[in-house]
Amino acid sequence: MIARFVALLGPKGVVTDAGDVEPWTHDWRGRYHGAAAAILAPASTQEVADTVRLAAELGIPLVPQGGNTSMVGGATPPADGSALILSLRRMNRIRSLSPQDNLAVCEAGVILSTLHEAAESAGRRFPLSLGAKGSATIGGLVSTNAGGTQVLRHGTMRALVEGIEAVLPDGSIFDGLDALKKDNRGYDIRQLLIGAEGTLGVVTAAALRLVPAIAARAVGWVGVATPAEALALLRLAESRLGDSVEGFEVIADDSLGHVLSHIPGTRCPIGTRTPWHVLIEVDDADSGEPGPAERLEGALADALEQGIAIDAAIAASEAQADAFWRLRESLSEAERAQGPALQYDISVPVARMPAFMLEAAAAAERAFPGTTASSFGHLGDGNVHFHVRAPRGTTDGPAWITAQGPAINAFVHDAVVAAGGSISAEHGIGQMKRAELGRLASPARLHALRAIKAAIDPQGLFNPGKLIPEPGEG
Amino acid sequence: MIARFVALLGPKGVVTDAGDVEPWTHDWRGRYHGAAAAILAPASTQEVADTVRLAAELGIPLVPQGGNTSMVGGATPPADGSALILSLRRMNRIRSLSPQDNLAVCEAGVILSTLHEAAESAGRRFPLSLGAKGSATIGGLVSTNAGGTQVLRHGTMRALVEGIEAVLPDGSIFDGLDALKKDNRGYDIRQLLIGAEGTLGVVTAAALRLVPAIAARAVGWVGVATPAEALALLRLAESRLGDSVEGFEVIADDSLGHVLSHIPGTRCPIGTRTPWHVLIEVDDADSGEPGPAERLEGALADALEQGIAIDAAIAASEAQADAFWRLRESLSEAERAQGPALQYDISVPVARMPAFMLEAAAAAERAFPGTTASSFGHLGDGNVHFHVRAPRGTTDGPAWITAQGPAINAFVHDAVVAAGGSISAEHGIGQMKRAELGRLASPARLHALRAIKAAIDPQGLFNPGKLIPEPGEG
Repeated sequence: MIARFVALLGPKGVVTDAGDVEPWTHDWRGRYHGAAAAILAPASTQEVADTVRLAAELGIPLVPQGGNTSMVGGATPPADGSALILSLRRMNRIRSLSPQDNLAVCEAGVILSTLHEAAESAGRRFPLSLGAKGSATIGGLVSTNAGGTQVLRHGTMRALVEGIEAVLPDGSIFDGLDALKKDNRGYDIRQLLIGAEGTLGVVTAAALRLVPAIAARAVGWVGVATPAEALALLRLAESRLGDSVEGFEVIADDSLGHVLSHIPGTRCPIGTRTPWHVLIEVDDADSGEPGPAERLEGALADALEQGIAIDAAIAASEAQADAFWRLRESLSEAERAQGPALQYDISVPVARMPAFMLEAAAAAERAFPGTTASSFGHLGDGNVHFHVRAPRGTTDGPAWITAQGPAINAFVHDAVVAAGGSISAEHGIGQMKRAELGRLASPARLHALRAIKAAIDPQGLFNPGKLIPEPGEG
Repeated sequence: MIARFVALLGPKGVVTDAGDVEPWTHDWRGRYHGAAAAILAPASTQEVADTVRLAAELGIPLVPQGGNTSMVGGATPPADGSALILSLRRMNRIRSLSPQDNLAVCEAGVILSTLHEAAESAGRRFPLSLGAKGSATIGGLVSTNAGGTQVLRHGTMRALVEGIEAVLPDGSIFDGLDALKKDNRGYDIRQLLIGAEGTLGVVTAAALRLVPAIAARAVGWVGVATPAEALALLRLAESRLGDSVEGFEVIADDSLGHVLSHIPGTRCPIGTRTPWHVLIEVDDADSGEPGPAERLEGALADALEQGIAIDAAIAASEAQADAFWRLRESLSEAERAQGPALQYDISVPVARMPAFMLEAAAAAERAFPGTTASSFGHLGDGNVHFHVRAPRGTTDGPAWITAQGPAINAFVHDAVVAAGGSISAEHGIGQMKRAELGRLASPARLHALRAIKAAIDPQGLFNPGKLIPEPGEG
């Protein structure tokens, strides 16, 4: 069987050495463990198509893999070793990059930071970034509809993809790579592949939208009393500063406290310790007057005057701007240092988020005595990282998670659904949330998911065990 | 059979009077004629679901209908009278409109101009408009992924829909109405319903994004030598004026000539008759300085200095701005007055559009001697209206279209496909382009369309005969 793939792809296209395969059989956090006899690594779209056809003929499931940075076990093969890994890492060419057209055509294996650098060299930028940018690949980012901190202005991956080339489970090549701003030829297959987690097709390339480079930025830190005031601040900033508000992150004071305690060299940017904090970034593509700092200053002065903000500071230098952002980017590390916690990647409609942040936290703390719950993140996207921390003094974190996890998961997810939200804002479903999706999705949604999967992948060979709830689930 | 629907929906929910049904059995241009024994007009989402379930039980096809303004016969029932029309016109409530959240939740039967007025009353606007705004409905606009002249800045309907409620062919209600900016729960069913032309679900409501009202606008008219210079002008305007470029329409001088000949009271805004013309609108949501006229003036001065523009004028008043736009909006009428023509709604990648406009027109004129071909429209969207006019002196337009239409259609569509484009940019497939889609779509695309249709609507009862190429087609 392996020999037939070697005949197709050559020796470089098939990795069978156990030591070379092993790192790719589990997720990077070590939560999901699988097995695979080989990694198939085709070097071209045609080789991907040939590989898919041969696998279909042999009835072998394939697990598409990019940088293997999934947060939900979405790229880990099944434990029974029945599947092979289909790595796109050798398809790593930027096929074209046009600053005039604001367009880059990247193969699936291009690493996000490589695209960032290429765009920058051309005087443009690709406005999506995340912690794993040094290993996450374009194919994975498309297949998971990745987000990040720039979604408020530029949208998720879905808004940045202008074309997709993919191989469908029957081995046919979907030719949707041409960047068409208007195309009404029926069902948007590109949209269907975005966020499908490799269960409907293997993305081999994408045409991606670039935006102007940032000529000037201003980063502010604002103290507010409540999440509702934070949202009022966002609305004020949007009406004063329009589309130039590129970052808007909300942080509870206790979370900030963890950063200040655990991360050396950090300090609170404002003199007052307010109950909530906002990090705001305003970017301009041109260097016209008034600049972003001046415009942000005007907006924040208004916010202070109107009583929306309690205190505010604007970074006086790029170094200070980076220090503001470092506070935000250190939150996960600081929370980990604080002790074991369950973390949720959830969204609700933006207008409901302020109430949700307070009420869901209070309800979780009541339901699970001793826990402390809080949230931080992308308020303007209706998406926060919601954490429930183990009671103080919990020494065996994994045991607490095993014992309490299922009940707390269900509690938080029920609250999200009650608020009209999503149990997966950014990370997808993968293996981690499959059963919860089955439990909570409406019959119409479940039916549509399953029917589409069965229609496009009738053999069930593309990324088995991911995303689609099993018959018993839901 | 009808009695069972009357029992379900009451007498107001079922229209059987032949005179009342007749206007809805053909398209507004009188090109497609169908028949239906009744119009079903449920008044709520639950009634739509009940109607769909009863129709499924009885095996009766349903043709969803909004304002019946399709350009491709997409809302006309089959001629054999086998189907009933499912009108959403009674579901015409704006369920909510929040200027704070920039969100309006509209039922499917809300007429576009009604939404425009409601948004305006709240100090906001819904940034999608088209000629049929007085009768086109939200459900139809969503189901056809409608475009218009504001797509450059605000996108098509797809970019403006934040949530969808729909009834699927099994009668289940898809609950995707909550406006979630991030939601990675697998396949995006909302995206699948947008542009599906009612073949997968009946859209019953949508949450739509509003944007700030326009505080100030500037409208310019620019003469350029070629479509390539028009695109260079767009790139210059975008880099100077950013997201505030809201309209950018390109017009051939001969098309302008037809307007000036046929439409009373029109005049060319610039002194020079250049080979090509551009209408550009720049909008600002605030009334800050410098205003849009001043900024547009600066950009156009640059364009003149760089030799991109030959001549330019900026409207000095709102009345003059309206007069500029009237030239653009009169193009279709003037073209009709000029004589019979075949019209194509097509798109190609933006960068390829300037060459396409010239080369496809020249090739069509060579292939069909005596014809004249030209195009106008949304250059920045890669979408123009491409016209092939009958030879001068053609008196029987319909006979010419019958005789020459199929060959010219195939010729133009082949050129579009060769340029990586779409045979339907804005209007959809409906009945008109179904066979051409079958002829030209790749096997992967055709397979996906058919498989999804069969999976979601296994009885084939939703809008039969539309969009999906029949077995013999393709």
